[in-house]
Amino acid sequence: MSISRLHGLYVEYLQKNAFQGHPKNLYDPMRYIMELGGKRIRPILCMTGSEICGGTAEMALPIAHAMEVFHNFSLVHDDIMDRADQRRGLPTVHKKWNEPTAILAGDNLLVKAYESILSFGGEQRDAILGLFSKTATEVCEGQQDDMDFAERNEVSEAEYLQMIQFKTAVLLGCSLASGAMVANAKQEIIDGLYEFAIAIGMNFQMMDDYLDAFGDAGKTGKISGGDIMEGKKTWLYIKSMEMHADTTLWFNETDLSKRVTLVQKQWIEMGLDQLILAKSKEYNQRGLDILSSLSTMGVKTDGLLEILDFLAGRTH
Amino acid sequence: MSISRLHGLYVEYLQKNAFQGHPKNLYDPMRYIMELGGKRIRPILCMTGSEICGGTAEMALPIAHAMEVFHNFSLVHDDIMDRADQRRGLPTVHKKWNEPTAILAGDNLLVKAYESILSFGGEQRDAILGLFSKTATEVCEGQQDDMDFAERNEVSEAEYLQMIQFKTAVLLGCSLASGAMVANAKQEIIDGLYEFAIAIGMNFQMMDDYLDAFGDAGKTGKISGGDIMEGKKTWLYIKSMEMHADTTLWFNETDLSKRVTLVQKQWIEMGLDQLILAKSKEYNQRGLDILSSLSTMGVKTDGLLEILDFLAGRTH
Repeated sequence: MSISRLHGLYVEYLQKNAFQGHPKNLYDPMRYIMELGGKRIRPILCMTGSEICGGTAEMALPIAHAMEVFHNFSLVHDDIMDRADQRRGLPTVHKKWNEPTAILAGDNLLVKAYESILSFGGEQRDAILGLFSKTATEVCEGQQDDMDFAERNEVSEAEYLQMIQFKTAVLLGCSLASGAMVANAKQEIIDGLYEFAIAIGMNFQMMDDYLDAFGDAGKTGKISGGDIMEGKKTWLYIKSMEMHADTTLWFNETDLSKRVTLVQKQWIEMGLDQLILAKSKEYNQRGLDILSSLSTMGVKTDGLLEILDFLAGRTH
Repeated sequence: MSISRLHGLYVEYLQKNAFQGHPKNLYDPMRYIMELGGKRIRPILCMTGSEICGGTAEMALPIAHAMEVFHNFSLVHDDIMDRADQRRGLPTVHKKWNEPTAILAGDNLLVKAYESILSFGGEQRDAILGLFSKTATEVCEGQQDDMDFAERNEVSEAEYLQMIQFKTAVLLGCSLASGAMVANAKQEIIDGLYEFAIAIGMNFQMMDDYLDAFGDAGKTGKISGGDIMEGKKTWLYIKSMEMHADTTLWFNETDLSKRVTLVQKQWIEMGLDQLILAKSKEYNQRGLDILSSLSTMGVKTDGLLEILDFLAGRTH
């Protein structure tokens, strides 16, 4: 399978390129977050992009690494902002060290992401730097929108979709597209791959919302209903407001696990469980449509189909 | 005078290139910190570097801007780490907004600093990107060292000098050297200019320490003895430890302004006021020596002499 092969290749590269330097209190947290694990989906997308456009996974490694380093920069800073104590069952950087160190370690990771792209010798380096900077700014904008939404009473569906596209999907787009750029792919193929990754990123976010509200905590490893307990403005929340759900019912219930049951029941009665699955299917179909048009351009899309299924939670 | 002309030129550029975008809560703080004022010494150094190497101030503007944007990124994040409430008499970004927003605004400023270099079309762009990334990492390392030193009992003079070189001086070096790179200067000139800016940066830091301990608060605008009250590990503090100062004397004094008087008296008796002035003079002389060797290479050094005097506090 392509995913596990590329995962292995990246982890090996990461071990060889582990961050080291003085002071220890700056470089230890950088290594710590990088080695916490995870799906490594961004480097996998990047290496896949190179392979399917006639390049190799190996030549994409510095760019693949930059995507993962940037992702980890955003995790370290987001965890401070979200006051998260744990990540993957271990203390977050600002909990294990402290906030100033977590801010700095994040900053230096962002610099190292740029440095990794700068170390790439291919002819599309400047174009990759440009796409990466645009993406980095969009991720900041998405995160600020997310924080702003928490303070607002009303958020439209369009605003929410724009926010998650920036916060999550564009870095997937950048990862896959920059991999294709490594292999000097044609612009229309780069654009198609970018849109494909956006679609599977949006689908991933929809499934994440669905599983939180209706999934089985035993399988997902997350507390089912966590978003509901927090009153988080997810797609389901926003959609239920749009459909004039009677929220007084749930906010009057102070027992949080009872509140979750109430909301789940209400949302199922409103048909929201089916509606979000339909929305997810829509993004999935968009991804498949892009794949078939990429096929007609001569791109081998098997690896991407595997990633689409993987991200939609249909394997692993 | 060269300084005020270049200051005006940069401020005009800054106004034309004010950060704008959505969300407002991300871009307002970015504009706020950029417009708080300051000496703009980094862009002035950069434009000077270009002018004295046969280029123009105007062609260096995107690079000069990157240096100032990076400096402001570091101010926003350092103010969070140092829990500073005010900067230039106005609330710091995390006080006016909040910490998450200050973290993100800083992150986006760092991205914008890179973007400004990327927008530069000159042939030395890649070399400037490399020097800038190296500098950015050193600034992070210096800041972490500074925080670590606060927790340690003993810090050597060499460690302290290394720390302030990274935390403060290298960005001045990068600013001046990258300006020379804009004008495609020879490597030995670039290197000389870099070392010159390091020397005046170190001198600036020495004078800053001197003025805090022995200066006149009326003139400097700072609370005289602020570093002493905080027990900050400045050059004077470290040097007095090395000379076996009797610290029990001051730490037994709980009245902070009385403590300042005690420490000042002790340090003057030990000759530390003269010693730090001698150290400052040493860096000043190093700067002057580099200028005369640059002169023999055909570099017009008048503008740099003006900056050397300006930073040492001899004008304005």
